[in-house]
Amino acid sequence: MSEVRRDIVTDTWVIVDIENDTIPKVTVTTSETSEDCPFDDGKENRTPNEIFAIRDGTLPNKPGWKVRVIPNIKPILRIEGELEKTGVGVYDMVTGTGANEVIVETPKHIVNFFDLPDEQIVLVLQTYRERIVDLHKDERMRYILIFKNHGRLAGASTIAHTHSDLIALPATPIRIKQKLNGAREYYGYKERCLFCDIMQQEIEMADRFVFQSDSFVVITPYASRFPFEILILPKRHCFSYKLIDQNEITDLARVLKKILKSIYDILGDVPYNFILNDSPNLIPRSDYWKTIKQDYHWHIEITPRIYRTTGFELGTGFYINRFSPEKAASALRASL
Amino acid sequence: MSEVRRDIVTDTWVIVDIENDTIPKVTVTTSETSEDCPFDDGKENRTPNEIFAIRDGTLPNKPGWKVRVIPNIKPILRIEGELEKTGVGVYDMVTGTGANEVIVETPKHIVNFFDLPDEQIVLVLQTYRERIVDLHKDERMRYILIFKNHGRLAGASTIAHTHSDLIALPATPIRIKQKLNGAREYYGYKERCLFCDIMQQEIEMADRFVFQSDSFVVITPYASRFPFEILILPKRHCFSYKLIDQNEITDLARVLKKILKSIYDILGDVPYNFILNDSPNLIPRSDYWKTIKQDYHWHIEITPRIYRTTGFELGTGFYINRFSPEKAASALRASL
Repeated sequence: MSEVRRDIVTDTWVIVDIENDTIPKVTVTTSETSEDCPFDDGKENRTPNEIFAIRDGTLPNKPGWKVRVIPNIKPILRIEGELEKTGVGVYDMVTGTGANEVIVETPKHIVNFFDLPDEQIVLVLQTYRERIVDLHKDERMRYILIFKNHGRLAGASTIAHTHSDLIALPATPIRIKQKLNGAREYYGYKERCLFCDIMQQEIEMADRFVFQSDSFVVITPYASRFPFEILILPKRHCFSYKLIDQNEITDLARVLKKILKSIYDILGDVPYNFILNDSPNLIPRSDYWKTIKQDYHWHIEITPRIYRTTGFELGTGFYINRFSPEKAASALRASL
Repeated sequence: MSEVRRDIVTDTWVIVDIENDTIPKVTVTTSETSEDCPFDDGKENRTPNEIFAIRDGTLPNKPGWKVRVIPNIKPILRIEGELEKTGVGVYDMVTGTGANEVIVETPKHIVNFFDLPDEQIVLVLQTYRERIVDLHKDERMRYILIFKNHGRLAGASTIAHTHSDLIALPATPIRIKQKLNGAREYYGYKERCLFCDIMQQEIEMADRFVFQSDSFVVITPYASRFPFEILILPKRHCFSYKLIDQNEITDLARVLKKILKSIYDILGDVPYNFILNDSPNLIPRSDYWKTIKQDYHWHIEITPRIYRTTGFELGTGFYINRFSPEKAASALRASL
């Protein structure tokens, strides 16, 4: 038996099998160890020059850093050049202007994010904030996406050393536009934040609630696209990660470690993506400029990648999820 | 160097690397042979009872068929029950009503679609038409998706015997809505079909043109999401595959065989999806009812799945394609 559930934020639909009790088996990803890792302390000469680093007075591009941000060695977008829009017959094109950075999360060769000490995760989360604040100064950068690919099936590179990716885009992504539209429409008739209402409802309904901390609520979304998909919402209504405060960062570090460890305990070393869903850069021409502070509420998605997407997902934009979020939340609560 | 290209039909954006000349390497998928295949002639008792078959007077569910349509053994949607819409707090849900069928394309144990004889592919394409016509009689079926998953990385099941999947959905997929909107908007200000204009432009520009037959044009789309992505357009403007005629079917069989063989010659046994993009079921309440015959133009997409999608695609709905459609079309033309 299945239910076809609508994601109220993005208006995408997911067919959820609500009967299956078997936790899906994970394709084992070969554990990647690299004896000669360019992200390790002391290998700074093997990467491009750093853009940003947290250091205690040591010199740039030398050992002694705590978190280090470098350009992607094969950038898909480049910082140089004007943002130009061109027509190609009936088509539209924008020059490949943007940024493509790598946030190396530790100088030590650690593979799993949740194996980082709390205080190291705090530095990583601070770095996310710093990079967004810095890149938003440039109006060509319409949206800053920070994400992690863990495991080959989630699209990770061959470098296993724990790191995040940052791509600054010259256009607001369609998925973020969908979220902004969903949130704006909801605010329009309810005069309340959609995400705040979702959070409140999930705490009350309890069947998709996983846990909460001082500042965050962790749930499995109603229209989860993937088994064990996770949504982390800050309790304080706030449109942008740029405004996260130090207490929230300290708390979020513990929350991330706890939920990722819990997923690992249930599913093993499952491939997953981590996605920070922030607001777009508030350039004055943006449609969202006026109401975004009320409408939007930044959040984090974690998507374990147990199943491969098929022609169904590609052809429809819908998803099929064969393990319900209620059952996933129950397993997660039991494992905490 | 890259270009950020907009897909005019769906308004999704793709970052295309226009410099890279290296044809991407394909992850080898282990060739799946099953000695004991339930789709082979004579194994009819191992599948559910057939819904449709092409037979020369032989009995249902007995040997002697040419193409056979059976229910999926683990259906994600079921034909029984009313289509009911329910609210769950702020969320919306539709009962899992629909259909989930498998089209077994040959009684012989053949793995590659392009190894089927032309006349067998003709029967498969006729079966697609028959199933859409039949399922459209049921107003609960809002959209019929016919697709193929070839190879494990494209989401194929463990049964290697060549087959197509059919899912009849109780809601029009977001990707199809995007296409309908794109096509309607274009028609609205140009009074011409968007797909007809794309076809004309691609024939003139020539750099993404692969080949044409009497009734079809084969191109690599301007905003190709995947290396060697293929778009097949019927020359005759027509909104629905239901209206394909016998000459077009005979021609399409040859076209499909030719392009799939060409992809195989260049990339080897690459995982791919085949997606038939038809119109939704024209139920009277549908927004598209009045103008769809002018606006829309059915088509086929073939998407080789060389790269895994990462947190970037999931977080944005954008794509990164590291091999340009111009270079792919050039390689395909050379291999014909």
